[in-house]
Amino acid sequence: MKNKECFKGKVVLDMGSGTGILAMWAAKAGASKVYAVEATPMARKARMLVEANGLSDIVEVIEAKIEEVELSGQVDIIVSEWMGYALLREAMLDSVIWARDKWLRPGGSLFPSHACIGWGALLYDGDQQNQVAGYENTLAEWTTFKKGLKEEYGISMDVLDKAYRTEHREYYLENAHYSNLRSSDVIGSNDETVEYDLLTVSIDELSKIRSKFSFEIEAGSANFVALGCWFKTMFRGSPQNPCSQEVVLDTSPLFPETHWGQQVLPLMRPVSVWRGDVVECETFIDRQKDNQRMLVLHFQLKVVPGPTKQDLEGNDRRVIELGHHKYNVL
Amino acid sequence: MKNKECFKGKVVLDMGSGTGILAMWAAKAGASKVYAVEATPMARKARMLVEANGLSDIVEVIEAKIEEVELSGQVDIIVSEWMGYALLREAMLDSVIWARDKWLRPGGSLFPSHACIGWGALLYDGDQQNQVAGYENTLAEWTTFKKGLKEEYGISMDVLDKAYRTEHREYYLENAHYSNLRSSDVIGSNDETVEYDLLTVSIDELSKIRSKFSFEIEAGSANFVALGCWFKTMFRGSPQNPCSQEVVLDTSPLFPETHWGQQVLPLMRPVSVWRGDVVECETFIDRQKDNQRMLVLHFQLKVVPGPTKQDLEGNDRRVIELGHHKYNVL
Repeated sequence: MKNKECFKGKVVLDMGSGTGILAMWAAKAGASKVYAVEATPMARKARMLVEANGLSDIVEVIEAKIEEVELSGQVDIIVSEWMGYALLREAMLDSVIWARDKWLRPGGSLFPSHACIGWGALLYDGDQQNQVAGYENTLAEWTTFKKGLKEEYGISMDVLDKAYRTEHREYYLENAHYSNLRSSDVIGSNDETVEYDLLTVSIDELSKIRSKFSFEIEAGSANFVALGCWFKTMFRGSPQNPCSQEVVLDTSPLFPETHWGQQVLPLMRPVSVWRGDVVECETFIDRQKDNQRMLVLHFQLKVVPGPTKQDLEGNDRRVIELGHHKYNVL
Repeated sequence: MKNKECFKGKVVLDMGSGTGILAMWAAKAGASKVYAVEATPMARKARMLVEANGLSDIVEVIEAKIEEVELSGQVDIIVSEWMGYALLREAMLDSVIWARDKWLRPGGSLFPSHACIGWGALLYDGDQQNQVAGYENTLAEWTTFKKGLKEEYGISMDVLDKAYRTEHREYYLENAHYSNLRSSDVIGSNDETVEYDLLTVSIDELSKIRSKFSFEIEAGSANFVALGCWFKTMFRGSPQNPCSQEVVLDTSPLFPETHWGQQVLPLMRPVSVWRGDVVECETFIDRQKDNQRMLVLHFQLKVVPGPTKQDLEGNDRRVIELGHHKYNVL
């Protein structure tokens, strides 16, 4: 709506249109034709809405997978709300790239046009207190259960100890969890790691994301307990059809809340940090082997002391290596 | 363990053995041979446990679906923990019946041997307060959302009002929910509706359950807000191999808590009841069309006034028809 000149008279494809809301907005912004492609029966609701809003002569709802759709020709613009947790969960961007390569005319543009992942050090870890308590409780329950079984029936379950711990450790401690963080939970952050240009990015590039960056702690003195992960997308149009006003959708806790929230990745061991400390971070995001739509996220962290040279007990501070952490993003 | 004479020297099949615990108990009770059939990889854990407990010469763990298993002959006893919410959810009893017809020798027995569903009037409805609040909140949010969309973008969503209400009504109000009730939540109950003899019951009989019964309110004066549903199974052996001590597993709130809890089916409109009122009840349990393992449960209720002839305002009390209620058991 702030860049109506980009849409005026254009042919638009809305990928994964859902209720058709982006398609209807594109029509309201001046598009001459909008294809709203939606694979689920929600397409029927979209059609009802398009009709009720008097937009049937512009918006055509197509109930099909994008790979099966035949349009009458290429389009000027692709709009899509494809973003998932940690930007890439759900892997819907794959279909957008597929549609871009088949249906976007040379010189066309995508809305959003660019995307990047953001990271931050957190002093609050969302529900993690409960996760740790849950893990400890479940281990205690297991011990009680085993004891009863042994005493009452002479059957030992000890041989499953390791498998039980591994399974519950993964469940409680190795899953990223959703949270709606406040800006005061963030003690340092970096969201300029790698910026993807959706006009040129490939599915390969998105399947194996490696990023190395550092940022400074901005809080005076704090307990660094978790890494947060979020994303932003930019709406710049394309070189041939640029926006006059760039619009940014930022899901960082420093911006107003969205339904994406943030992903919280608790550190196995919290660490005390001071203003000016540098967090050096290496992150890896891959697809899960058994479910390409889900992610597995690894990181390694190092905290390099800044101006504060001694800790609260007067000991000299050293570089702290926080080692390797792994989380499922489900 | 209270009926070891039933197991001594017998050949036993444990259906859906999981960790193999029932199979190991059968061996401890004196069985000469136990087949522990488990279709999931949990079978490998069962095998580890059987070995660690020195029972490998008696218990044979078989990782397969029961329909694919070839045993060396028929068995004397089938043990199985097949029960789900409202007794029949998951439909695992189908496989037990299939195994019974193929592998149980004439005169053999099942543990458990009998089962029935129990019902009760509740003055507490578990989380239903939250369910109603959730439903009301979601309707209020929808109105706010629509207003914003209309004002800011000129797009109306009114055409979806009915579909939105239907979907959320089903989600919040037409799903049975799990609860661990206390005995004080029950103001009247009946668990002697229909008793199934697992030695003779057919899959057809279990696919369409109809029951008509009545029970008396036992509380002095109470608010009847929900119907509860639970089950019990009996361990009687068979006519040829009877138990000397019948054992009953009762998941009613009047008995100690089990992991099955109870299913709570909130009434659309609570009703005041007094001691001696009679609740006449007709219940229907069917399989869901699109998922045979899940249930759909219907009931009709009538409250017939007992000795208390006038309500608190001094009005004559009449028969109250509570009409038709429907719930998914998921």
